[in-house]
Amino acid sequence: MPHIQIANDLPGISGLMAQRPDTGAVLSRLAEVLLRSGDSPLSRGERELIAAYVSALNCTEFCSASHGAFAAAQLEGGHDLVRAVIADPASAPVSPLIRALLAVAAEVQAEARPVSDGAIAAARAAGAGDAEIHDTVLIAAAFAMFNRYVSGLATEVPSDPAFYDVAAALIVEHGYGASL
Amino acid sequence: MPHIQIANDLPGISGLMAQRPDTGAVLSRLAEVLLRSGDSPLSRGERELIAAYVSALNCTEFCSASHGAFAAAQLEGGHDLVRAVIADPASAPVSPLIRALLAVAAEVQAEARPVSDGAIAAARAAGAGDAEIHDTVLIAAAFAMFNRYVSGLATEVPSDPAFYDVAAALIVEHGYGASL
Repeated sequence: MPHIQIANDLPGISGLMAQRPDTGAVLSRLAEVLLRSGDSPLSRGERELIAAYVSALNCTEFCSASHGAFAAAQLEGGHDLVRAVIADPASAPVSPLIRALLAVAAEVQAEARPVSDGAIAAARAAGAGDAEIHDTVLIAAAFAMFNRYVSGLATEVPSDPAFYDVAAALIVEHGYGASL
Repeated sequence: MPHIQIANDLPGISGLMAQRPDTGAVLSRLAEVLLRSGDSPLSRGERELIAAYVSALNCTEFCSASHGAFAAAQLEGGHDLVRAVIADPASAPVSPLIRALLAVAAEVQAEARPVSDGAIAAARAAGAGDAEIHDTVLIAAAFAMFNRYVSGLATEVPSDPAFYDVAAALIVEHGYGASL
């Protein structure tokens, strides 16, 4: 049961955003810029994959399943690819660049300290420029927030797992603003 | 040295926001809603105190010193109070409510998992309602993000420690939008 009263039956962050539209609007806008509309060299699917991976490391089921579904809907490889990345990015069928960026994201997830020079050098060797590094660090950092918000308040996961693919169709078509 | 090139000489998140106004604008808006303009039962000084405390737990000097100065400027007790809270919230001269909310914030800082029933019950016993609990969890979660962004990219701290009190005067008077 959530730690605060949620006057709607939406799961996860959807319920919190509907309950608190003041903060919900800004958080939704942040997700939209980071994962979709922002001018990133990473594709929408790749950005969602980083979000899903970090959320899985944080054990926040609602976010890892949601962003996993959003990644799957926008990447060749779909759900199989997302599952492989969450299970083991080192052996998953992703490009060397994405593999190196997932390692950067994992460092950001673990602790608020400088990403290691080794992880940055490996990302640059795989083709990352400043924009890829910036966006990966900020997405991983943002999911340190989203995951703590969703898990910290003990929000519910959907009773029907089909929720995630329905949400994916909505997000891919209309963006995060539509979720409010 | 920062992990990415910052084409300005601003320290910490100020440099990142100026470098990337696309994400900077949303992050600044989030700080404004969470710490100032949002409709919270917590005062601006109390919300800044939670931000400073979480940033200190995350060892992100730029954020703990910045939000510590912003808290000090808006709370009776000033810098002495902020130092006491960061050193040991259990013995700092704050109200039982703020002490209990700082304990909630520390749990959110540590990990993305449900805040313990005990910490929530203690906060309610000290007078917290849903809004105090929500805002504390979201502020602590947001600083999991801000701290990782600032520390992860290895941004610089100000060469002149007077930076923080100058920034405090600006933020208290004009809000976070003014920092862009």
